Amino acid sequence: MIRINENYLKLQASYLFSTIAKRVNDFQSQNPDKEIIKLGIGDATRALPAACVEAFHTSVDEMATDAGFRGYGPEQGYPFLRKKIAENDFKARGVDISADEIFISDGAKCDTGNFQEILSTDITFAVPDPVYPVYVDTNVMAGRTGDFETDRYRNIVYLECTRDNNFIPDLPKKPVDLIYLCFPNNPTGTTISKNELAKWVNYARENKSLILFDAAYEAFIRNEEIPHSIYEVDGAKEVAVEFRSFSKTAGFTGTRCAFTVVPKECMAYDSQGAQQSLHALWNRRHCTKFNGVSYPVQRAAEAVYSDAGKQQVAEIIADYMKNADLIRQEMDALGLSYVGGENSPYIWIDAKGNSWDFFDNLLNNAGVVCTPGAGFGTCGDQYIRLSAFNSYENVEEAMKRIRASFK
Amino acid sequence: MIRINENYLKLQASYLFSTIAKRVNDFQSQNPDKEIIKLGIGDATRALPAACVEAFHTSVDEMATDAGFRGYGPEQGYPFLRKKIAENDFKARGVDISADEIFISDGAKCDTGNFQEILSTDITFAVPDPVYPVYVDTNVMAGRTGDFETDRYRNIVYLECTRDNNFIPDLPKKPVDLIYLCFPNNPTGTTISKNELAKWVNYARENKSLILFDAAYEAFIRNEEIPHSIYEVDGAKEVAVEFRSFSKTAGFTGTRCAFTVVPKECMAYDSQGAQQSLHALWNRRHCTKFNGVSYPVQRAAEAVYSDAGKQQVAEIIADYMKNADLIRQEMDALGLSYVGGENSPYIWIDAKGNSWDFFDNLLNNAGVVCTPGAGFGTCGDQYIRLSAFNSYENVEEAMKRIRASFK
Repeated sequence: MIRINENYLKLQASYLFSTIAKRVNDFQSQNPDKEIIKLGIGDATRALPAACVEAFHTSVDEMATDAGFRGYGPEQGYPFLRKKIAENDFKARGVDISADEIFISDGAKCDTGNFQEILSTDITFAVPDPVYPVYVDTNVMAGRTGDFETDRYRNIVYLECTRDNNFIPDLPKKPVDLIYLCFPNNPTGTTISKNELAKWVNYARENKSLILFDAAYEAFIRNEEIPHSIYEVDGAKEVAVEFRSFSKTAGFTGTRCAFTVVPKECMAYDSQGAQQSLHALWNRRHCTKFNGVSYPVQRAAEAVYSDAGKQQVAEIIADYMKNADLIRQEMDALGLSYVGGENSPYIWIDAKGNSWDFFDNLLNNAGVVCTPGAGFGTCGDQYIRLSAFNSYENVEEAMKRIRASFK
Repeated sequence: MIRINENYLKLQASYLFSTIAKRVNDFQSQNPDKEIIKLGIGDATRALPAACVEAFHTSVDEMATDAGFRGYGPEQGYPFLRKKIAENDFKARGVDISADEIFISDGAKCDTGNFQEILSTDITFAVPDPVYPVYVDTNVMAGRTGDFETDRYRNIVYLECTRDNNFIPDLPKKPVDLIYLCFPNNPTGTTISKNELAKWVNYARENKSLILFDAAYEAFIRNEEIPHSIYEVDGAKEVAVEFRSFSKTAGFTGTRCAFTVVPKECMAYDSQGAQQSLHALWNRRHCTKFNGVSYPVQRAAEAVYSDAGKQQVAEIIADYMKNADLIRQEMDALGLSYVGGENSPYIWIDAKGNSWDFFDNLLNNAGVVCTPGAGFGTCGDQYIRLSAFNSYENVEEAMKRIRASFK
């Protein structure tokens, strides 16, 4: 008899976005003339950079002739893209990552979800709270957790991020084997200093732990002292894997390209205590369960590193950050407490009460959609997230309406 | 201490393609003037159909403006593509599959590799021998097998495909929970009749087994009586999941688009014996560990179903099959025994001895590359695979050389 992976039965249905959609639809049908402004989801809204569009077209034209056609590419990605990443995202910042330590993929969501597959199910792991739900759910599916009880899964070490610790998690009190970190953070928009990050690297080295570092939002960092990569910390290459994406930088959310860095010196252990190369294991997993990213998409991603591409991406990011600045100014004016938005497209706002009540007020009184923090974990219950991904005009209008609704 | 998934240590290194590459390189350096013709790998060589190229360009242009830009799409794929597939690949053949039973993905390799994740690790499974190695390796990674001993993994039921059974596997003698089937077959190129396939469906219904049916090569079927889909057999929707791909039909090996059909009535069981919907489980897996296929790629795939697209794909397939016919004629002339090549791009040839010896002879005496059957399993030891994916001119030249070398 064919039987299912029963770990899936532990998963809690994600009501967050369906509940948001239902409430928005209800409001819209009762207020058919009201134009709703969405500052909820973290999805790019601006056109692909012109340099990417041009490279996309050129490579599609290559595929249109027998002579230029490309079939299966390397599962790990084409060398032309891996080299550009190594040079521009790492070597240019003084970080020695080589092209063959970079694995091109179709998304950071996929990579952060899949990476745990090469690890033992019999390890302890820690996630921040609030957290991007994919880290948690993929570990539930793999059987690393107990049942969901009251408001949390058993056997997960939750690293609480609250006003008390400035939303930077404290080191776990008990040793954990695997740690998920995300900076600039989704959903709080907070960043971590090099010194703070060094504490985590040292912890991992001392405890032989592994850090999975999600840096999908690094392009939004404006403060020069904030690290873009965990590898800016000495010794991190032995204990950390880093996830990056073209989604939020060059607007590839619908185009799909990302990458994972697995340094060759990054090791895990077998049950005999012998070192095993995570690079070799991930390579095996990637080549067996994945077949490479679309060739024209890789060419479009490569164009991000051209002079024109860099300038265009910088302009798009600057525009989104102008939105973030506007949101922060408005929150200041309203006397609302928040973090984020300085080096991140997300602003994490103290709702001073239930996050769903705040959501309803914002929707009903201002026609603006936010994301209730409860969707990211228990520590998000009293917060809401605003996203800077929209046009300046829409953000301006949203802020006007919020101001009016608070009067 | 961070520990690895030790099932990966059971995996046998795949020396097949690296060994082929090494021998080819050695030959080339000793014979620098000889033009080697590759009939080994099953990779498309013809340009993308013009209709796909046009749709690709149009959708990239959409992404180039703020107004036309598309961010995150539905993880399951856009309705425009799912509907076209349901209509053209299924309803047009009298098979009632609805659009929401189709999950768009970036490859059949990924889907056939990932699907086992939603099933219990504590089930018995059967694979054909010879077989596409991904079915085996992903189950090894998941822990469903024992160690590799001599020439096979323990705890796998191998379904031997030999001359004695016309390369169509016999039903297992002991009940198995999960069965992988692939028709038209990779690597043997054989097909299965509706009656033979019905035996498997009945077996699965009687034993509450699940069939994972890989139909990636269905477009090469010329004989009208051969089923393109397992769902052409009554009752199959309750016990079978089907994998399809645009790779071999429209040459998407480097463009990446495929799909999996999970009928809503297809059920598995939990440990209490209660039915569980595989559609719901796969949807959860797909939405959590995957983020949808690139929008322009989905538009290019949609164009396969336009009138122009259908005609262009038919012409490409006909050209590849002309190659297959030529190979079969030549094998007949040489008195070599083979199967496949009639409704499939692969020809499975009896090497009358060790497949690596045959490989070496073909390379050294004719400058032609084939795939030694040993790479697909024990039952492939005495066979080689020739692929029809190349230009007619190259296949013609390869056949001339093979004929000369056999004199």
